[in-house]
Amino acid sequence: MSQATDFFATHRTMLEEAVAATRSRGYYSAFPESPSPKVYGETAAGVGAAAFEGWLGTEFPLSTPGCAGTVATEKSPYGKALDVRYPRVAPDGVPALVEAAGAGLRVWRDAGVEARVGVGLEILKRLHARVFELANAVQHTSGQAFVMAFQAGGAHALDRALESIAYAYAEMTRVPETAVWEKPGRDAPIRMEKTFTVTPRGLALVVGCNTFPTWNSWPGLFASLVTGNPVIVKPHPGAVLPLAITVQAGQEVLAEAGFDPNLMTLAAEDPADGLAAVLAVRPEVKLIDFTGGNVFGEWLEDNARQATVFTEKAGVNTVVIDSTASFKGMCFNLAFSLALYTGQMCTAPQNLYLPSDGIETDDGHTSVDDVVAGLEAAFGKLLGDDARAVELLGGVVNTGVLERLEKVGSVGTVAIASREVRHPTYDDAVVRTPTVVLLDVTDSSTYERECFGPVAYLITTGSTAESIETFRRTANEHGAMTASVYSTSDETIAAMRSAALDAGVALSENLTGQVFVNQSAAFSDFHGTGANPAANATFTDGAYVASRFRFIQSRRHLP
Amino acid sequence: MSQATDFFATHRTMLEEAVAATRSRGYYSAFPESPSPKVYGETAAGVGAAAFEGWLGTEFPLSTPGCAGTVATEKSPYGKALDVRYPRVAPDGVPALVEAAGAGLRVWRDAGVEARVGVGLEILKRLHARVFELANAVQHTSGQAFVMAFQAGGAHALDRALESIAYAYAEMTRVPETAVWEKPGRDAPIRMEKTFTVTPRGLALVVGCNTFPTWNSWPGLFASLVTGNPVIVKPHPGAVLPLAITVQAGQEVLAEAGFDPNLMTLAAEDPADGLAAVLAVRPEVKLIDFTGGNVFGEWLEDNARQATVFTEKAGVNTVVIDSTASFKGMCFNLAFSLALYTGQMCTAPQNLYLPSDGIETDDGHTSVDDVVAGLEAAFGKLLGDDARAVELLGGVVNTGVLERLEKVGSVGTVAIASREVRHPTYDDAVVRTPTVVLLDVTDSSTYERECFGPVAYLITTGSTAESIETFRRTANEHGAMTASVYSTSDETIAAMRSAALDAGVALSENLTGQVFVNQSAAFSDFHGTGANPAANATFTDGAYVASRFRFIQSRRHLP
Repeated sequence: MSQATDFFATHRTMLEEAVAATRSRGYYSAFPESPSPKVYGETAAGVGAAAFEGWLGTEFPLSTPGCAGTVATEKSPYGKALDVRYPRVAPDGVPALVEAAGAGLRVWRDAGVEARVGVGLEILKRLHARVFELANAVQHTSGQAFVMAFQAGGAHALDRALESIAYAYAEMTRVPETAVWEKPGRDAPIRMEKTFTVTPRGLALVVGCNTFPTWNSWPGLFASLVTGNPVIVKPHPGAVLPLAITVQAGQEVLAEAGFDPNLMTLAAEDPADGLAAVLAVRPEVKLIDFTGGNVFGEWLEDNARQATVFTEKAGVNTVVIDSTASFKGMCFNLAFSLALYTGQMCTAPQNLYLPSDGIETDDGHTSVDDVVAGLEAAFGKLLGDDARAVELLGGVVNTGVLERLEKVGSVGTVAIASREVRHPTYDDAVVRTPTVVLLDVTDSSTYERECFGPVAYLITTGSTAESIETFRRTANEHGAMTASVYSTSDETIAAMRSAALDAGVALSENLTGQVFVNQSAAFSDFHGTGANPAANATFTDGAYVASRFRFIQSRRHLP
Repeated sequence: MSQATDFFATHRTMLEEAVAATRSRGYYSAFPESPSPKVYGETAAGVGAAAFEGWLGTEFPLSTPGCAGTVATEKSPYGKALDVRYPRVAPDGVPALVEAAGAGLRVWRDAGVEARVGVGLEILKRLHARVFELANAVQHTSGQAFVMAFQAGGAHALDRALESIAYAYAEMTRVPETAVWEKPGRDAPIRMEKTFTVTPRGLALVVGCNTFPTWNSWPGLFASLVTGNPVIVKPHPGAVLPLAITVQAGQEVLAEAGFDPNLMTLAAEDPADGLAAVLAVRPEVKLIDFTGGNVFGEWLEDNARQATVFTEKAGVNTVVIDSTASFKGMCFNLAFSLALYTGQMCTAPQNLYLPSDGIETDDGHTSVDDVVAGLEAAFGKLLGDDARAVELLGGVVNTGVLERLEKVGSVGTVAIASREVRHPTYDDAVVRTPTVVLLDVTDSSTYERECFGPVAYLITTGSTAESIETFRRTANEHGAMTASVYSTSDETIAAMRSAALDAGVALSENLTGQVFVNQSAAFSDFHGTGANPAANATFTDGAYVASRFRFIQSRRHLP
């Protein structure tokens, strides 16, 4: 029994539970989301933080084939000096990288499903052992607050990775490795033995994003890897460390199991090189996973013709406000969703539609001004205290977000202004609260475009029917990652569900508690749908994994 | 209970058996392949033939939205006058067709998985009831001999269609319609109800081919239909009737079940219109299934960017001849594969490699000339008698095949010449036996291109190792639908298996009996792999169905 199949045996129960969870879609998590010492032990947080600190100002110990020199491109939204240097892959190093990445493919393919899945699961285990180190790395590259970085960047990301491995495993084992085919014949049956081998598509490229370097990259990374494809990881220049740690852990396990460590490589870049575009059109690259802006996502879809391209881009996320049985709960929930990580989530709501004559609530008839006041009160509770506020808001990830925030007054009436928050620990942290801007349904040129960051539009319509119709149209035309509705009317809920099906958007109904529209739970909620322009794929369904490999068969007669 | 769910209940056992067969990949067939009166009854053949004859010279009773006038474009390879007129869709009728095709989408979507699958299975039942009529229609459009038309165009095509419905059903039911998610909480659990709805991608386009109008079209057609997508069927101008019957049966069942019959439409064309290219780039069309030549297949892949495109094209199918324990069996099997339907199969062998110094066999050392003589003897037995020959050869499907056959003498030494065969029933039938042309491994400019029809190249190499290497290279570069090896050496078999994995081609080993490399069995053998340039998809795996729909979810709190 090889090291890799040992890994498989070790993690088999978790895998089987994960596969079952993808089918039942009930609650399941393999990686505890609480960073509490009660869960992870008294020393884990300190050890992880120290490991993170240990990387700062150093040259990260990874060697990437084709690299020349190093780059240090990260800038913490908290103002912390990072200065980690990574091997730089320039465009002229790509041929050597591609060749080295492919060198281990056949051995990896021939090792079989269980060996590859075993290695994938063991990498998750190693990453989990470094979850506090990862959380610090995610916090100081993305700007997420620590607990969020621990959850979204650590535990939940591991769950999403496990989910994609579970889907890939289920898909690869949908067909047996060998089968006997026996066709009845006039005299005797015709008997054949058939062999089915999972074969990879080729090289896989994963293009990471700045805001969720692990959560958004790991599903594609592990799905491609365990289906046999060597993976080149091209991190966002602003969030390299979390993926450098990922590749380091991956290479460690690959080498231990006797495989070529270059089956997983880190391709850090000087941003001026546009390395992702160079890698994406290489003929050897057959799979691409991308999370990021629409412009480059659509460029990949249009130009990386030799590859199957999975994109998670952006859209205009919508809330239709019709009526509510819990006005305070609604305002709290919406305010939280807008404030969480400063609205820097592809799933954060942007367009909040409500009738201009107001809504019915448990507080009676409520005008648009009352709704603004309700949101403002909720913001006050959530964000009034700076020390508490920063744990929800995190930091502003880059200057583009600040620039959009500053311009927002020119597009509509600012109903709730953004304010600067002072971080109690990091003096140079850039922290802002969300702004809410009043628009009318005729201001479509503004609200039909994504304004990434802490900007929400409260858009008055003639009626809820018009709100729903506007949602249907904008989501179909411009995409949406999420949609949400507040209504006490069954008919309105039904109409919104129908519109969400038409628009191909996942819908959350009457969220007034501790579940937020921006969040999706691994194994139960799909992230993105693949059914509207915001994303051509989802985390995770059969379509997300099935085309990452092919079954190649052989057959022969049996006596 | 609706009519559609009644259909589902009626066919449920067959469906479940089919799903199980796709997983076990043993022998399974739901539709008997023997046209014997013992199976189908004494009158079935006559009734079916009469039904076919009844269509000749008439206007086929289908009404396609957007049509104007009729076309009659079919020409029987047997010389039989067909003159069936079909509603013509010209390019200016496309907007009306597309609009009408989409009109029933929401109702079809909202009917749910079991209703749609029930309708799909009932259509198969109706088509099976017309299998003799279909066999005649396939025979007289494709040129297949009657028994082959009954099997490949009828029973086996139904099995392939059932297989694709089974895969689609399994994929759609991989996620429950509703689930309860209950996350443990500090005080009480958070409980949510989630709903998952299968939603179609949009309109589906199926582009049929001349040689296998049903077998190659039905898998995509039924996979798209049951996953919720209205299907526009654009038949090859030379083989309209089998798909007109298909659409007629489909509309009949759709209407009976209360759905819009235009969920399945026939778009017959004047070939000068290039209708497939017009339909393929319509923004409403999100799925395309195509079988045919590489030029248009690649055009679709490159230009129908708004759609997911499944193509079955062509390649250079290979046989590596190293040694054999049954020289006669090998020659018989190869001769049969070359002769079957005049080599007009995308799976027929073309390039036969063998070492120039001959091979070891059960008859001792055998030279290249001996192999030619062996093949010639096998052809003699199979095709020496005209009346028997036509039942294997069928007719030449079009003049392109004849032209290539006539030119073949100029590219190499004709070792076995083609001969004209006189059909005992149809005086005007065009029937030819295969030709075998001797080439050397250096003649790559000839053998690296597909020569569709009854032309095989016997290519001498320096060694079996060179044969295998040439296979690996040509299949990787130019694609292949099939590969085959004859060897008594375990090492050679292993080397060929490895090359087949590298090249992404299904391999048949030492076929010397009644299984032929050109044939693939539904539920067990994959047809095409999606792993080389000959096809970007396979009949049928998860990847073939999973991206034809999306899961759209909604979620809400439970008390």
